[in-house]
Amino acid sequence: MIAATDIGGRPCLVLGAGGFIGTNLCRHLLQRGARVRGFGRSKNFPDALDGVDWVAGEFSDRAALSRVVDGSELVFHLVGGRAPESSNRDPAGDLTDNVLSTLHFLDICRNRNVRRVVFASSGGTVYGVVKEIPIPENAPTDPITAYGIGKLTIEKYLALYRHLHGLDSTILRIANPFGPFQVGYRKQGVIAAFVQQALNGEVLEIWGDGEVVRDFVYIDDVVEAITDAALYEGPHRIFNVGQGTGRSVNQILMDIETVLDRGAIEKRYRPSRLADVPVNVLDIGLIRREIGWQPREDWLSALRATVDWIAEAGK
Amino acid sequence: MIAATDIGGRPCLVLGAGGFIGTNLCRHLLQRGARVRGFGRSKNFPDALDGVDWVAGEFSDRAALSRVVDGSELVFHLVGGRAPESSNRDPAGDLTDNVLSTLHFLDICRNRNVRRVVFASSGGTVYGVVKEIPIPENAPTDPITAYGIGKLTIEKYLALYRHLHGLDSTILRIANPFGPFQVGYRKQGVIAAFVQQALNGEVLEIWGDGEVVRDFVYIDDVVEAITDAALYEGPHRIFNVGQGTGRSVNQILMDIETVLDRGAIEKRYRPSRLADVPVNVLDIGLIRREIGWQPREDWLSALRATVDWIAEAGK
Repeated sequence: MIAATDIGGRPCLVLGAGGFIGTNLCRHLLQRGARVRGFGRSKNFPDALDGVDWVAGEFSDRAALSRVVDGSELVFHLVGGRAPESSNRDPAGDLTDNVLSTLHFLDICRNRNVRRVVFASSGGTVYGVVKEIPIPENAPTDPITAYGIGKLTIEKYLALYRHLHGLDSTILRIANPFGPFQVGYRKQGVIAAFVQQALNGEVLEIWGDGEVVRDFVYIDDVVEAITDAALYEGPHRIFNVGQGTGRSVNQILMDIETVLDRGAIEKRYRPSRLADVPVNVLDIGLIRREIGWQPREDWLSALRATVDWIAEAGK
Repeated sequence: MIAATDIGGRPCLVLGAGGFIGTNLCRHLLQRGARVRGFGRSKNFPDALDGVDWVAGEFSDRAALSRVVDGSELVFHLVGGRAPESSNRDPAGDLTDNVLSTLHFLDICRNRNVRRVVFASSGGTVYGVVKEIPIPENAPTDPITAYGIGKLTIEKYLALYRHLHGLDSTILRIANPFGPFQVGYRKQGVIAAFVQQALNGEVLEIWGDGEVVRDFVYIDDVVEAITDAALYEGPHRIFNVGQGTGRSVNQILMDIETVLDRGAIEKRYRPSRLADVPVNVLDIGLIRREIGWQPREDWLSALRATVDWIAEAGK
């Protein structure tokens, strides 16, 4: 286990810095004293990135990427592309935008003095339909979305570049993160979407019967895990990051109703989608043992903070 | 288990039909009474493909691919691209040529009446450096070549298209095939290369100390496995295809010397390559139990037939 202060002063680059996880990670890195450069297409919340050396650019732009990687010691790769469900409508586009661009990015890193690449993989999609709950890192990986296949393939290339070129990397399979700076209208996360729709007085649309189970983890815990893992010096390369407990969509809806305190929210159940696995709960024993990280946020407090943030952001 | 005659009369399409496995598969399918269309960049041995409806074209040419897929019931995807070792020099090129083109191919198949896609994956590379010998199909898959990652990623997309679109597929993880129509000068296989070099009176170049162990399987057995698997109706989708026994490169060299009967061959040992796993032997219990296939060729007879073919082809 490494002292949290070790990241202080280090030049960090966050790719996809303008998004949900990116915005939160940049803020967390700054709090821990790192020098933070952010690269992305656009900033969802420009004011939130005060203190970040922001460079606007496309992940597919190799020249731009080469310039921002230069001088960075730790590079956090959070570029995600489209949502899991929509990735299935264009697997080839997903492959090109995410996997192919990542290969170009890795070729840039191996020719620079990058100390480590930290990659945000997807604990919610790389495993697919599982037989075992909670899911350990060595479970079979059979994604049912192109999004999940893309993440898994990038994991394999990271291992290859480590083997061939000594480019170090750490992979975090993140469950379903939620919290401030996640926006409901982009369908990034079910909690943000539900809260936003409820606040707008809209009817909530639920895919399936609402009994699918997910591992929801608060974003403050996630960015702490990402940062701690960036400094970890042990032998493991892949870590699950989740709460380690499951909640059904129907349970979440009830808790949102409790936190909002406006009575029952109107819901409409729609046919389930092929892209949705029935259950996903991660085993977080490895990161707990190896890195000493564990989620600290209480569920209802985290949900309340999320609701408050969305209500405030919508004003 | 399905009668071998069932393929008779069926319209089969072989992609990559002009290559080593493709040429042998086309001939085998014809022998078993199938109607065979072959698609590929070029025919290594045009005379060997008498009776095949040959269409020349690039795998990346979607219009050409669409025309040949039309009317095919079983499609055998053998397009391989560059060799495992050279794939590591251009992973992005490998991804584009093989994986991206395969996605376009699958989109064509799902819009046609293709009954099944049979994919030649790589038992020699998808597993990477293993802890367990022989290797079962459910072993971890951590390739150390871009070639292996490409094959593995295609496997994942095949499962996705099965899940989303009902496109049926069977995956064969083929070990190290050898036999007639494998050409030594393209470095396709170590046996063909060694025999060709020995016949030319050249010094044999061996990467490493010659103690790497591979699972060599005769091509006649391989094409029989591919054909049998195309007709299999059970629940499994991924099968190893190998001899199920390992031989070191040094052992093979001794046996080649025996078969050639020209005395000792001059050898030069060179540094080992990062792309080479130390040992690879496949567990073939699953295909034996489920499909009833097993390798029938005797090692020395197969090696002799291979040497005779190369000697004859070189005249």
